[in-house]
Amino acid sequence: MLIVMHHHATRAQIDQVIATVEELGYRAEPIPGSLRTAIGVLGNQGYVDDSTIRNLPGVRETIHVSKPYKMVSRDFHPEPSVVDVSGVRFGDGEKPVIIAGPCSIETEQQMLEAATQVKAAGAQMLRGGAFKPRTGPHTFQGLGVEGLKILQQAGRASGLPVVTEVMRIEQLDVICRYADMLQVGARNMQNFDLLKEVGKTEHPVLLKRGMSATIEEFLAAAEYIVAEGNKRVVLCERGIRTFEKATRNTLDLSVVPLIREMSHLPIIVDPSHATGKRSLVSVMSKAALVAGAHGLMIEVHPDPAKALCDGAQSLTGAGFAELMGEISGLLQYLGH
Amino acid sequence: MLIVMHHHATRAQIDQVIATVEELGYRAEPIPGSLRTAIGVLGNQGYVDDSTIRNLPGVRETIHVSKPYKMVSRDFHPEPSVVDVSGVRFGDGEKPVIIAGPCSIETEQQMLEAATQVKAAGAQMLRGGAFKPRTGPHTFQGLGVEGLKILQQAGRASGLPVVTEVMRIEQLDVICRYADMLQVGARNMQNFDLLKEVGKTEHPVLLKRGMSATIEEFLAAAEYIVAEGNKRVVLCERGIRTFEKATRNTLDLSVVPLIREMSHLPIIVDPSHATGKRSLVSVMSKAALVAGAHGLMIEVHPDPAKALCDGAQSLTGAGFAELMGEISGLLQYLGH
Amino acid sequence: MLIVMHHHATRAQIDQVIATVEELGYRAEPIPGSLRTAIGVLGNQGYVDDSTIRNLPGVRETIHVSKPYKMVSRDFHPEPSVVDVSGVRFGDGEKPVIIAGPCSIETEQQMLEAATQVKAAGAQMLRGGAFKPRTGPHTFQGLGVEGLKILQQAGRASGLPVVTEVMRIEQLDVICRYADMLQVGARNMQNFDLLKEVGKTEHPVLLKRGMSATIEEFLAAAEYIVAEGNKRVVLCERGIRTFEKATRNTLDLSVVPLIREMSHLPIIVDPSHATGKRSLVSVMSKAALVAGAHGLMIEVHPDPAKALCDGAQSLTGAGFAELMGEISGLLQYLGH
Amino acid sequence: MLIVMHHHATRAQIDQVIATVEELGYRAEPIPGSLRTAIGVLGNQGYVDDSTIRNLPGVRETIHVSKPYKMVSRDFHPEPSVVDVSGVRFGDGEKPVIIAGPCSIETEQQMLEAATQVKAAGAQMLRGGAFKPRTGPHTFQGLGVEGLKILQQAGRASGLPVVTEVMRIEQLDVICRYADMLQVGARNMQNFDLLKEVGKTEHPVLLKRGMSATIEEFLAAAEYIVAEGNKRVVLCERGIRTFEKATRNTLDLSVVPLIREMSHLPIIVDPSHATGKRSLVSVMSKAALVAGAHGLMIEVHPDPAKALCDGAQSLTGAGFAELMGEISGLLQYLGH
Repeated sequence: MLIVMHHHATRAQIDQVIATVEELGYRAEPIPGSLRTAIGVLGNQGYVDDSTIRNLPGVRETIHVSKPYKMVSRDFHPEPSVVDVSGVRFGDGEKPVIIAGPCSIETEQQMLEAATQVKAAGAQMLRGGAFKPRTGPHTFQGLGVEGLKILQQAGRASGLPVVTEVMRIEQLDVICRYADMLQVGARNMQNFDLLKEVGKTEHPVLLKRGMSATIEEFLAAAEYIVAEGNKRVVLCERGIRTFEKATRNTLDLSVVPLIREMSHLPIIVDPSHATGKRSLVSVMSKAALVAGAHGLMIEVHPDPAKALCDGAQSLTGAGFAELMGEISGLLQYLGH
Repeated sequence: MLIVMHHHATRAQIDQVIATVEELGYRAEPIPGSLRTAIGVLGNQGYVDDSTIRNLPGVRETIHVSKPYKMVSRDFHPEPSVVDVSGVRFGDGEKPVIIAGPCSIETEQQMLEAATQVKAAGAQMLRGGAFKPRTGPHTFQGLGVEGLKILQQAGRASGLPVVTEVMRIEQLDVICRYADMLQVGARNMQNFDLLKEVGKTEHPVLLKRGMSATIEEFLAAAEYIVAEGNKRVVLCERGIRTFEKATRNTLDLSVVPLIREMSHLPIIVDPSHATGKRSLVSVMSKAALVAGAHGLMIEVHPDPAKALCDGAQSLTGAGFAELMGEISGLLQYLGH
Repeated sequence: MLIVMHHHATRAQIDQVIATVEELGYRAEPIPGSLRTAIGVLGNQGYVDDSTIRNLPGVRETIHVSKPYKMVSRDFHPEPSVVDVSGVRFGDGEKPVIIAGPCSIETEQQMLEAATQVKAAGAQMLRGGAFKPRTGPHTFQGLGVEGLKILQQAGRASGLPVVTEVMRIEQLDVICRYADMLQVGARNMQNFDLLKEVGKTEHPVLLKRGMSATIEEFLAAAEYIVAEGNKRVVLCERGIRTFEKATRNTLDLSVVPLIREMSHLPIIVDPSHATGKRSLVSVMSKAALVAGAHGLMIEVHPDPAKALCDGAQSLTGAGFAELMGEISGLLQYLGH
Repeated sequence: MLIVMHHHATRAQIDQVIATVEELGYRAEPIPGSLRTAIGVLGNQGYVDDSTIRNLPGVRETIHVSKPYKMVSRDFHPEPSVVDVSGVRFGDGEKPVIIAGPCSIETEQQMLEAATQVKAAGAQMLRGGAFKPRTGPHTFQGLGVEGLKILQQAGRASGLPVVTEVMRIEQLDVICRYADMLQVGARNMQNFDLLKEVGKTEHPVLLKRGMSATIEEFLAAAEYIVAEGNKRVVLCERGIRTFEKATRNTLDLSVVPLIREMSHLPIIVDPSHATGKRSLVSVMSKAALVAGAHGLMIEVHPDPAKALCDGAQSLTGAGFAELMGEISGLLQYLGH
């Protein structure tokens, strides 16, 4: 950490900052400048909580050099990680993984039909929500455990591993029983207790970026899981909240190559939630693959017009098959 | 809901939209315009999930007239609510409630000292965190149940009701035993399962606005609690995340009069987390009261320079006493 | 426009709204719903300024169906436009145009070297700034007219048309003399007087999206130019300002297919300003082309480490040549 | 400036950074840490353009200690400035200045009526726009010079100095002839050429914060004016653009005490544009004064329902008189 003193800070103020830093167990190294003094904080093994220092008299600002994560960073773990989900592999050197399926599990028939369609088109994993996070309490909240059973059945029938969202700790056991991969949704990205418990399971995890999470916070959330011993984390960019409302969220695609620089964890993209518009899903799927995504998560519904949730951003089975044809050519071009 | 058709939508497309609306159980009312046709959706009792309609051919956009909340809205419940917490009352016609105390409970001595200081200065409630949400896993995470006991003890010694944050459902029982009011933090504002369980308790709730939550989402989160039967919800504005980084968050003070128009629930302000800077806390506290806040939540630490968390935004006991002197004059001026 | 009345609006309030709408010269069409009444405003030929209506008693909100632009919209001009700049063509059916060159014109030698490098690598246009918008007044502000001459010279030597930014109306004459295309920068996207004057010239225009401009505002800015008679406008997405600071801006790539749906004007992408990081430029360039961009604008400097501006996001000549090799393969794959 | 090297940066990389810094004319001071090395850049008299350094091999990030402004900062000019506009004074120790009037000048009668109303209620200055920045070209753009004459006339009749917006450099002469104070609008806050020309006049300037301008950029924009010799700048917070759309903008009131810490220039608040809702204007006006604003700018229209622009946020004459009564009591309480 670096402490920048005010232009007019007195010698006594500088000395007090140095004394406080040393009381906290670090070493303080003053760096005099032509306009002001800065003080380097050395000897810390990780992130320093600067709040005790920031408002000492004469301090203008504090600047962090260390980060709130370590195990997920490429700085400390240079080799890329590959995450295996029942034989499907996410990561460098692997063919990008296409996860597809409806937003929510509605009926046996709908799931089976969706699974058949996405399998036939070439998807490697099946998605479907049994527990749904909805803005208000007066809308469809998911089928619960009944839905999990339907999902497992559809996965088995189609031979696809399945991923589904966990919303509360008590659901972990049952979801681990029925699903191959746990999803932590955007709204729970900083539900730290859930992250910790997910980190204690042996299931691979799909961690979605929070609506207004910085990359630093996103990686720190992954660190919560990894720090508990579960290293099988796949990150997922799904759009961030900005002033622009013409799309549901703003797909922050630059995050893909950037996270590949900063972390060894695989990262995939969800163009359905990011854009919220069916007509943008295909083109942004291909852009995401070119940007280096290790996979995609795409909403597909046999009959989007009757979907109980997010129909506007769901592809039909036929639309998805068409996209998969285009993706297949693109992946060949990209050397997969 | 209103469905706006494209300028060039065909008669057949309009008819299909009407048929779909009626299939969903609503009544469709076409409104021809000079440039385009719109279709009103009537007969819905609440929020309509528009995703099935938004992407039908010829549809340009759908516009919601209903909201994802109802019980918390003033439209359906015009009289203001007063929330009582062990005798301390939040709401219209009541003197604004000042909640004060440290960010986190560190030691018996620290809490007792803080409680004595804030009580002496005139605070009506005591705060302190036993379970702390921290960006990364490698920093102080709170004392847990041990902290709750210290908090209760400090509250009893000073005669102040206490509020503390709940981060996971399993903590609810023990927190209800030790605390007078449950706090749901900003990062958990859309942890819907936590909201539902909090709604099943009989404890009053302090619900903080999520970092990037719209007012609509904020009220819908409160609706989750109220819909379970717990009507004693106090809202708390604590700053939103914007591009501006000179303050920790951007305090959205206009939300206070706006929520007072839209909802019957009391709303308070947390100037400490909103600004993140001690030097701004006092002045923004007073601005919040003038804006109509039903209370304030202020961080006070006997020795901020040694605080384990958020020292930079904490007032000292003396600083808080000075602020309370100013607040007392201001409240008198405001007629309380 | 649609006016939504409050749940408890009285008959008299509804009548007053209808009367006001009619006074403004429109037709009012009440639409009774189960919970509330809405009032359609018909007969308007364009955007209705709703501010006179929004706060009448009983009004809850007003909703726009018309947009603040018309001539640039695909609704009213379905065929795509192709913009020709001295023989280089932007638009559907054309090979994407690569514009390259340094952020600012520094010396004859630097420009000539840059022009030679980008031409050799396959760029079709040359960029360089003579008038530079800089956050503070104490940094390099560009070479001015001297720079324009250097730019023209480098363009002629390499056979590339040139584009450069205009910052004030008085510069228009001289820039039109030396450059083939006028650039309006992000900070001036709502400098409406500049837009109008640019619209009176016969030069093609590159209009960059403002830092926090919505798509609607972006298109309305283009409408200012087109409404004056200059139809040769190329739009440019260059990243928007969000809470995320890990990249210089957030590249909003979904805007490319979305604007292609909404407008007939060509749209290109500037990955250099959007990301601000050299290591992200190549990958995001390719993603932009896959997203449907009609071109790219890339910063290239012979010696980025000594650039007077934006060196961190500039490619070297060699780096650009490598990227052009990759782009060439990609364009072939995309069918260009 | 501080350069932070990567954890794994080699000695050769560190040496290259040092060499580059020294080539740029600064002194480099390495600061070895336990995890990584940082390099202080000393000897700079102002802001260092870091783009040449940021992407050298081994560099992780660069951190600015200096700012893009100096003359407007309190660091270098500790005494507060008072700005005099024809006898009306903005600044510390002065009674806050209330500027009022319509968004746009429409007719002689409207302006005279508005002037009479706001003068009678106690306003010290009159506002009114003759040149209007509008999102799209197809709406009312202002009366131009005719409007300026009406404004001057209304100002003289009521004895109030007048302020009006300048949108292009060529308007400066005529506006200086008719108005007492020049306003630079939010959309032109980074129209640097306009700022420079405004800085060459001898007229006081009201500089509005850009929609998405950071405080640093806001002060740097003021620096452009002051650097040209015109020191009479009054800053104006008018709300920033965020994800929240329930208010027109998000009023960032904490900026008031923060700018008072950082700069010696006076700062006022425009609650009308910030909130966009008449019902919020009064309460936020009072909150702004308590936050330390040196003045307010409030939209008042004799007949808001018929205003050509922004009627929804305009107070009536009677509403303004009521607010002024409340403000008068508040200012007395605040000791003015």
